[in-house]
Amino acid sequence: MNNIAIFGYGTVGKGVYELTKNNPLFKVAAIFDKPEKKEELHNLLVTDIDSIILDKSIDTVVECLGGDSLPHEVIIKSLKNKKNVVTSNKETISKHLSEYLRLANENQVSIQFEASVGGGIPLIYPLTIQSDFDEIFEVKGILNGTSNFILTKMSDEKMDKNEAIKLAQEKGFAEKDPTADLEGIDMVRKGCILASLITKKEIHNEDILHFGISNLNASMIAEVASRGKVLKLITDIKVSDKGTSVIVLPVAIDKNSPLAQVKNEYNGVLILGKYQEPLTFIGKGAGKNPTASAIVSDLVRINKKIAYPYPDLKPYYPLTSDLKGKYLLFSKESLKEVNDPTEQELKAAMFIARVE
Amino acid sequence: MNNIAIFGYGTVGKGVYELTKNNPLFKVAAIFDKPEKKEELHNLLVTDIDSIILDKSIDTVVECLGGDSLPHEVIIKSLKNKKNVVTSNKETISKHLSEYLRLANENQVSIQFEASVGGGIPLIYPLTIQSDFDEIFEVKGILNGTSNFILTKMSDEKMDKNEAIKLAQEKGFAEKDPTADLEGIDMVRKGCILASLITKKEIHNEDILHFGISNLNASMIAEVASRGKVLKLITDIKVSDKGTSVIVLPVAIDKNSPLAQVKNEYNGVLILGKYQEPLTFIGKGAGKNPTASAIVSDLVRINKKIAYPYPDLKPYYPLTSDLKGKYLLFSKESLKEVNDPTEQELKAAMFIARVE
Repeated sequence: MNNIAIFGYGTVGKGVYELTKNNPLFKVAAIFDKPEKKEELHNLLVTDIDSIILDKSIDTVVECLGGDSLPHEVIIKSLKNKKNVVTSNKETISKHLSEYLRLANENQVSIQFEASVGGGIPLIYPLTIQSDFDEIFEVKGILNGTSNFILTKMSDEKMDKNEAIKLAQEKGFAEKDPTADLEGIDMVRKGCILASLITKKEIHNEDILHFGISNLNASMIAEVASRGKVLKLITDIKVSDKGTSVIVLPVAIDKNSPLAQVKNEYNGVLILGKYQEPLTFIGKGAGKNPTASAIVSDLVRINKKIAYPYPDLKPYYPLTSDLKGKYLLFSKESLKEVNDPTEQELKAAMFIARVE
Repeated sequence: MNNIAIFGYGTVGKGVYELTKNNPLFKVAAIFDKPEKKEELHNLLVTDIDSIILDKSIDTVVECLGGDSLPHEVIIKSLKNKKNVVTSNKETISKHLSEYLRLANENQVSIQFEASVGGGIPLIYPLTIQSDFDEIFEVKGILNGTSNFILTKMSDEKMDKNEAIKLAQEKGFAEKDPTADLEGIDMVRKGCILASLITKKEIHNEDILHFGISNLNASMIAEVASRGKVLKLITDIKVSDKGTSVIVLPVAIDKNSPLAQVKNEYNGVLILGKYQEPLTFIGKGAGKNPTASAIVSDLVRINKKIAYPYPDLKPYYPLTSDLKGKYLLFSKESLKEVNDPTEQELKAAMFIARVE
């Protein structure tokens, strides 16, 4: 049985507690949160990080705090104190994975983060196993439910962008300020994590070129639809002898392709390898149940001592950006079609979409 | 490093050899096949089962023989001689899983069979992990590439059934006698394996009610299409307080549902759980590369000591057949719509399809 502490009793933390409290594999020994949660959590509540970290009976920490600096502190301290860590935090994992793996290996514990990419889709584990024996050429993912929800409403229901954003906010799919989602920042982090796992090298968020959908309007959607295509915001990872390319961008994909069926708040991923012929996963990318489910699958693996033993990442690896292909470059007045554009040409446009 | 022996150098065995021969995790020490393979395999060829079984330096056996009786002998002998076993053989796994797990646990080795259901789709591993903490309500799978290829050609290209069967045979997707695929026998075996894993109980192929597509004709396809549906052969597993239902049958599913996009030789699976909200996997269900890929993913897990530690199955568990819902019952002259039919009513019809 694992003695676990949950940091953060928000939506995801609650889901993890629900899924573990009656499971004989686990005992929830402490939940860290603010003093206001006392009435709800009674004696489980701990408001001081270090008293959990120094408690030798707790062997595993689940980080559900959100943000970056406090989670980073909790993760570092937990690993140094020989506790396993499970987190869904793509921000801190994408920034510090190399350091976390080194600390985990030094202290002979495990850090697992299945929920950080693709929510409830079991993606990180199978992709990591596959990269141990196959040559993975490409991973294409719709990995942000907010932007996909907005794109779906604009495409399928001709909804105005601001109306779609408002609806996403009402349904709890979008933050008050959805910029990070619309500009592809969230999908940069997920691309960084996946590319690190495929290459087993340290990759930096800052190297990932990204184009978002903030400037998208109805006439652009109509232009894409007139070509029999549907617009999706995609993280595209390509690995070849020439290097690794990671780019986040709107792509006009064929209406009959598997990723075109990934609608609303769903995520979807397509994996292409030499042996792993097209493999598609579609599932909920965020929310209480899918995220808690992915976290608890990591906890089960830790309990059964079958968690993936990630090696240290190799040193920092610069990325290339593969810009080959046909692109639509929208400006205020005109639309240009360009083959194999430069980064500058793409950045100068108001909105871009690769055509596939 | 694992010292492995491959039994059977057919399509799948060759794929496994290609994927392991240059991988530092493995050494292929022997390949069992007929004496005719001597020119191709040189000193790797072994034509006597027992000399591999008694070779203590070989720690892992990959069974790629096909059929039932010889594979069963190889698996039993390997486990008793403390060798791990990896197989894609759904026939022998569905018949003998309970015995294999007991022998593996007694001898402290592992039997793994990711490739036995869904080919290259990582399905068995995530479903097993999920069933350790979630309540899985339903698993719906298109798990036979042959029948799905034929259904796709008949539905999308209005191809005649016999012409579609001939094309499937030419492409290597169908056996000379495709009865086991068309009648759903292959999908019975896969349903049996998945249901055993979800319930952790011994389940028998003989208990699984199945209806195939042998009697399907163009007018039935047209009838289904006129209702905005598309016909798929589905293994449907339902788990509730009332028991476990496993049934293989043609289902008329909505054209926009994720499984409707699973075409030709592809397989697809939909998993519904209390926490695992709809999750869809789509990939190639058979063939050299996907099958070899799934086998080698099991080998990697054995090498890294993270293979799933299956417990012994609980004793034999009788199934129920959940026949609730609306069904189309075709006879030679007429079509009847029936709600919640009896097994007898379904068996008396020439062709049946559940409507969803």
